[in-house]
Amino acid sequence: MHNAVISTLLNHRSIRRFKPQSLSEEQIKLLVECAQAASTSSFTQSFSIIGVEDSAIKKELREISGDQPYVEENGYFFVFVADQYRNKQIGERNGADTSVLDTTQRLTVALGDAAFAAQNMAVAAESMGLGICYIGSIQRDIERTAELLHLPDYTFPVFGLAVGYPDQNPEKRPRLPFENIFHKNRYEEKMSQEALNQYDQKVADYYHTRTGGRRDETWTKQIAQGLSVPPRLALKPYLEKHHLGRR
Amino acid sequence: MHNAVISTLLNHRSIRRFKPQSLSEEQIKLLVECAQAASTSSFTQSFSIIGVEDSAIKKELREISGDQPYVEENGYFFVFVADQYRNKQIGERNGADTSVLDTTQRLTVALGDAAFAAQNMAVAAESMGLGICYIGSIQRDIERTAELLHLPDYTFPVFGLAVGYPDQNPEKRPRLPFENIFHKNRYEEKMSQEALNQYDQKVADYYHTRTGGRRDETWTKQIAQGLSVPPRLALKPYLEKHHLGRR
Repeated sequence: MHNAVISTLLNHRSIRRFKPQSLSEEQIKLLVECAQAASTSSFTQSFSIIGVEDSAIKKELREISGDQPYVEENGYFFVFVADQYRNKQIGERNGADTSVLDTTQRLTVALGDAAFAAQNMAVAAESMGLGICYIGSIQRDIERTAELLHLPDYTFPVFGLAVGYPDQNPEKRPRLPFENIFHKNRYEEKMSQEALNQYDQKVADYYHTRTGGRRDETWTKQIAQGLSVPPRLALKPYLEKHHLGRR
Repeated sequence: MHNAVISTLLNHRSIRRFKPQSLSEEQIKLLVECAQAASTSSFTQSFSIIGVEDSAIKKELREISGDQPYVEENGYFFVFVADQYRNKQIGERNGADTSVLDTTQRLTVALGDAAFAAQNMAVAAESMGLGICYIGSIQRDIERTAELLHLPDYTFPVFGLAVGYPDQNPEKRPRLPFENIFHKNRYEEKMSQEALNQYDQKVADYYHTRTGGRRDETWTKQIAQGLSVPPRLALKPYLEKHHLGRR
């Protein structure tokens, strides 16, 4: 059953170093077309894609993201935007009451649409021999990101997607065992501890190999440590200010 | 550039009638593996997948979803859950302060992780000759859905994914023109009206053909009408009650 598509999916690794070669116009258009082919909630297509080519903007986004070089140095940089502004405009032109657009349900729909589209683009890119890395940290200063990209109300920047020709070939990062992700008929609160322990060892081995012994960390330890990162509390007020998820 | 992966992506149509043939255990495991191979924010893997096999639960989900037959009649039915509960448990066992998990940022991360995984599964399924349909309407009665699936705090059901052997072969639904989705460097508030008009005609033609002339609706009209659907206001209080997106 391992056809070319499944092989592409299972072979995913995030790429964080790209060759200095830009994507062609044709590649960009094809990637966007693939993104658009994804499912969209009630056919609303509640997302937009911003292609960031301006080097000054890329440099600023790199800073916002905590100085990750691959935000600036890549083949192309896309920002996926959850977008109810287009629907707002269309509704107003048709004399419709657009107040539903400020609901949490519509916010999650737009976020879902953006994520489906982005994942399609990621898969398409990898099938073309390109590598990708999602950049959630463009939200580290969401006000500044939105300002740079001139985002209107009813939209927010969900993540960036760096795409380009890989200049590294990292190992695949092991995923949680099937029994820790999959539940039959009902959510099983009790985690399969044995599977989790084995997984912890697998992740520790992965880091050990990848860093030549400098890092030796289990997955659960990494998760626990990640909880101490200061919370990004700017997102909720940003959304509400811009008419998203108010109720 | 149209390799097998890109052809699969561009060929997507949602399937709403399936043959009465169940997926095999092997297919289900492979689909879950493909889902897990997707990117995940900071390696947190903040989602779970529930495989709904119990016919009574499927019947109830069908009802909740507004009596869509394909929620019950399919090859398999998955529910994707945004899940910070696993992280919560792991954090607590490691003596970490888990309070960050109730932030809107963590909520959006979990939703994104669930959507990336689901879209990978959708693509994998289609590559195997299966069809898919997302079911967002399991949220029409989110309390009941969560109760049926025994979902704990720090989780919520994002959408279902019906998968199975297609028993229909619908036309592809045309997507917005490139210029209405893609922006260069900054969001362009002014929509390309000419492109949008052409698209409206294309969608009207699509519905005309698909319904044998019974339906003849533009995309913008559909969007405007969709705004009059009563808002689902239960989502926000549900999330807050269950420790998600509180701040």
